[in-house]
Amino acid sequence: MTLRDIAALINARIDADVSDGGLEIRRVAKIEEAGEGDITFLANPKYIRHLATTNASAVIVANALKDIPPREGRGPALLRVQDPYLSFVRVLAAFNPPPDPVAPGIHPTAVVASSARLGRDVRIAAYAVVGERVVVGDGAMIGPHAAVGDDVTIGPGSLLYSHVTVREGCHIGARVILQPGAVIGSDGFGFAPRKDGSYDKIPQMGIVVIEDDVEIGANTTIDRATMGETRIGRGAKLDNLIQIAHNVTIGPHTVIAAQTGVSGSTRIGANCVIAGQVGFAGHLEIADRTMIGAQSGLHRSITTPGEQWFGYPAMPARQARPMLSREDSSTASPVGRDTDRMAGMRARAAFWTSS
Amino acid sequence: MTLRDIAALINARIDADVSDGGLEIRRVAKIEEAGEGDITFLANPKYIRHLATTNASAVIVANALKDIPPREGRGPALLRVQDPYLSFVRVLAAFNPPPDPVAPGIHPTAVVASSARLGRDVRIAAYAVVGERVVVGDGAMIGPHAAVGDDVTIGPGSLLYSHVTVREGCHIGARVILQPGAVIGSDGFGFAPRKDGSYDKIPQMGIVVIEDDVEIGANTTIDRATMGETRIGRGAKLDNLIQIAHNVTIGPHTVIAAQTGVSGSTRIGANCVIAGQVGFAGHLEIADRTMIGAQSGLHRSITTPGEQWFGYPAMPARQARPMLSREDSSTASPVGRDTDRMAGMRARAAFWTSS
Amino acid sequence: MTLRDIAALINARIDADVSDGGLEIRRVAKIEEAGEGDITFLANPKYIRHLATTNASAVIVANALKDIPPREGRGPALLRVQDPYLSFVRVLAAFNPPPDPVAPGIHPTAVVASSARLGRDVRIAAYAVVGERVVVGDGAMIGPHAAVGDDVTIGPGSLLYSHVTVREGCHIGARVILQPGAVIGSDGFGFAPRKDGSYDKIPQMGIVVIEDDVEIGANTTIDRATMGETRIGRGAKLDNLIQIAHNVTIGPHTVIAAQTGVSGSTRIGANCVIAGQVGFAGHLEIADRTMIGAQSGLHRSITTPGEQWFGYPAMPARQARPMLSREDSSTASPVGRDTDRMAGMRARAAFWTSS
Repeated sequence: MTLRDIAALINARIDADVSDGGLEIRRVAKIEEAGEGDITFLANPKYIRHLATTNASAVIVANALKDIPPREGRGPALLRVQDPYLSFVRVLAAFNPPPDPVAPGIHPTAVVASSARLGRDVRIAAYAVVGERVVVGDGAMIGPHAAVGDDVTIGPGSLLYSHVTVREGCHIGARVILQPGAVIGSDGFGFAPRKDGSYDKIPQMGIVVIEDDVEIGANTTIDRATMGETRIGRGAKLDNLIQIAHNVTIGPHTVIAAQTGVSGSTRIGANCVIAGQVGFAGHLEIADRTMIGAQSGLHRSITTPGEQWFGYPAMPARQARPMLSREDSSTASPVGRDTDRMAGMRARAAFWTSS
Repeated sequence: MTLRDIAALINARIDADVSDGGLEIRRVAKIEEAGEGDITFLANPKYIRHLATTNASAVIVANALKDIPPREGRGPALLRVQDPYLSFVRVLAAFNPPPDPVAPGIHPTAVVASSARLGRDVRIAAYAVVGERVVVGDGAMIGPHAAVGDDVTIGPGSLLYSHVTVREGCHIGARVILQPGAVIGSDGFGFAPRKDGSYDKIPQMGIVVIEDDVEIGANTTIDRATMGETRIGRGAKLDNLIQIAHNVTIGPHTVIAAQTGVSGSTRIGANCVIAGQVGFAGHLEIADRTMIGAQSGLHRSITTPGEQWFGYPAMPARQARPMLSREDSSTASPVGRDTDRMAGMRARAAFWTSS
Repeated sequence: MTLRDIAALINARIDADVSDGGLEIRRVAKIEEAGEGDITFLANPKYIRHLATTNASAVIVANALKDIPPREGRGPALLRVQDPYLSFVRVLAAFNPPPDPVAPGIHPTAVVASSARLGRDVRIAAYAVVGERVVVGDGAMIGPHAAVGDDVTIGPGSLLYSHVTVREGCHIGARVILQPGAVIGSDGFGFAPRKDGSYDKIPQMGIVVIEDDVEIGANTTIDRATMGETRIGRGAKLDNLIQIAHNVTIGPHTVIAAQTGVSGSTRIGANCVIAGQVGFAGHLEIADRTMIGAQSGLHRSITTPGEQWFGYPAMPARQARPMLSREDSSTASPVGRDTDRMAGMRARAAFWTSS
């Protein structure tokens, strides 16, 4: 890609003494390791000194970045944008299109019901099973050994990896990603006690609806509703090994880290950030933009949006800190200091730091 | 179904000014939403006022219900039973037979060993694999991509959903339900340390026995015994993503919510109710009818039957409440009040409330 | 096997009044239950009285064991070794070779890319899928419905059970065991927030490397790195339903019990013992030989090797005990006493006790 192509992709202004935008960019790299033909980024002004020494051909920086250090010879082209990190992620994605583990077309071993309707450019892998009346949108991928039940719909551009199950009647939106082993539409856990201590199974007649742009992690399980729907809102991101019980609703753009469990009928709002191994009792309402620390236990509703909660049982962070320091001053400050980090630990933009 | 059919099904007395039991019932519904031809139920006398206004054709009520409010015109037929909720669940199940995701017969792509013995009306789905000397009972279902190892037995009427694994030698009883991705008979986690800090694998030579009428949730894992058996007692219900280690015994009719883990050789009694994300250390004995709150950590045996425990480390509820209130009175009462609810949160009859 | 064969296997000295090493041993058994032709072991001198009564033909005992009780008639042959338990495990393994759930050769239904290179004596089961350019070492097993992505390498002698996923580009060492449903190489959980509260997916371009002699439990998930590697060190043992996030490193011979989760970029040292349901925040460094109690929450690094930690938030055991006893003396001593046991509860040599 040329510098000009990249600038157009991320809506950047080229701020450079390079004569034109025709410079060829071949790779993305860390600022310390970048060489000729590489593009990198600088998000934190604290590291501005690297601009004096980097060998990168181009660096994505903030519109507002000032005091560029002087250097000998010609420095890198600067691409000015509002959010350098996000722009860099987009360049990175452009240079690294997602792997395409399934070849184009329908593998001869796939079992596709004759009543299924497949869009254009659908890829179906070896040993996938697609049930009656399934609708698969344009460009969707169904991985090896995926099992798609009768009457399921899968939106355009969605990716179902190996061993995914989508049971009968569930709806998967557009551009949804289901990592390997995810189970959508297993029976909710509902039983009516008999006098003798044994149980009748309560029929689980509802479905699961997964809206557009959701990602569901490996081996995560989402139960179908008793009646009606279990619903994962658009843009929500669920990590691995999460349990979502029947009739739960997860709001749009909420992020949930691994091994968290949500009990039946709880409604979690939009734009929440929930760390790993958190547990929610049933029938709660969690306000929008709530942040919850790792391993917390929620047993009552949260009505004020935008608060931070943590602990077992969970309490608002502003309340928990002094209490912890009363108990043991040696652990109080780290807990207080790290709350934000734990809550957002997997959700935040952790690109370089995690690589 | 006619009113008379339903009365016979749930052993009800028809208490009505309808002239006969020939009334045709076509649907089940909530009491506020029910119309002509619908049946509903009233379990909580607090809502008795609905009997004056519901348009349902029939309502299941308790034998003991009194003070039926007067109403204009002809009210619904009343079906008198001992337990209206349980009876309603049975009517619901009769109107909603479980989905039948697998067509009758043996799919041509299923790989069934010639030494396997299949009962009558067995359904085996596409790409299922059934090993040597496997015995499958009448009416059992083996879902797509299920892998049934050599020498496994599967009782009549059992349902194995997609991607279930039952490894070699394990026994599955009658009417057992294994949700998608459940793993039965993986190796127990046993290693003998060597002097240099590395480990020898201890052979895991036992099996798993799952008794009649058990349900196992999606992606739950049950390890085979080192020697002897890991055993899940009849009627027990295990939710999703649960870990059962080698040589564990779960008693009959015990209910365990999602993401709980039970360490090796622990024995849990009968009719216990265990909430989600609970952990049990190894080699414990848990008495019958114990109830354990969500996220508790059990590191010692419980010898008195019928108690409620919770916390990390777990303690009896009667002991935990005052301690919590000493620490922080603002959280004490909710915890106290909600203990019962958390313990039973997924196990109780949560039909309307969760829909 | 003859007594002499067994002695050679475990490097034992035969200490017996049996005339020769030609005695035929046919079975392993518990010391109380052993009969003629059986071999057993005695690790704990506390049970030395059993030597006077056992009917075993041979008993593995410590070199140092003294004061053998007198008995009438001829007692068992004694095999003297340094570590009777470990030696016994090896004899047990020799008598019980791991089950071989997959027949020799390549099942006709397996889909193996023509560019894949298979070693000698490779077994590939029904409906396994093996991608382009995959390399499979001598004697490796690929179970039913396993999905091996393009460019994966699998070392000699490794066992992949049913429904295992190894996504594109990952490396599996020699003698690795992947229990059913394990997912290796799912996308790391990384998203860059946009101004409007939605997220861009950060490409996950790295891989997973699993070194030699590792065992991974059923339905455990190990995410690929954002860039670079997620790495599981040689000899490490991971139980079921564990979550390992992107860019994590687990040191050699570290043991982790079920349902533990490790957040992104955390590095755990060598020879650690981590109990079940533990959570680690991201970007931590955990020193070698650390032991961590069940359900602990780690949110800061541990720099001193060989310590015991537990609690939420985790603290060193030496610090936690007095604090717990201050709070509630009735629970203090069991917690203190059981800490070692909880930390090591699944890792220790738990053969007879767990059978």
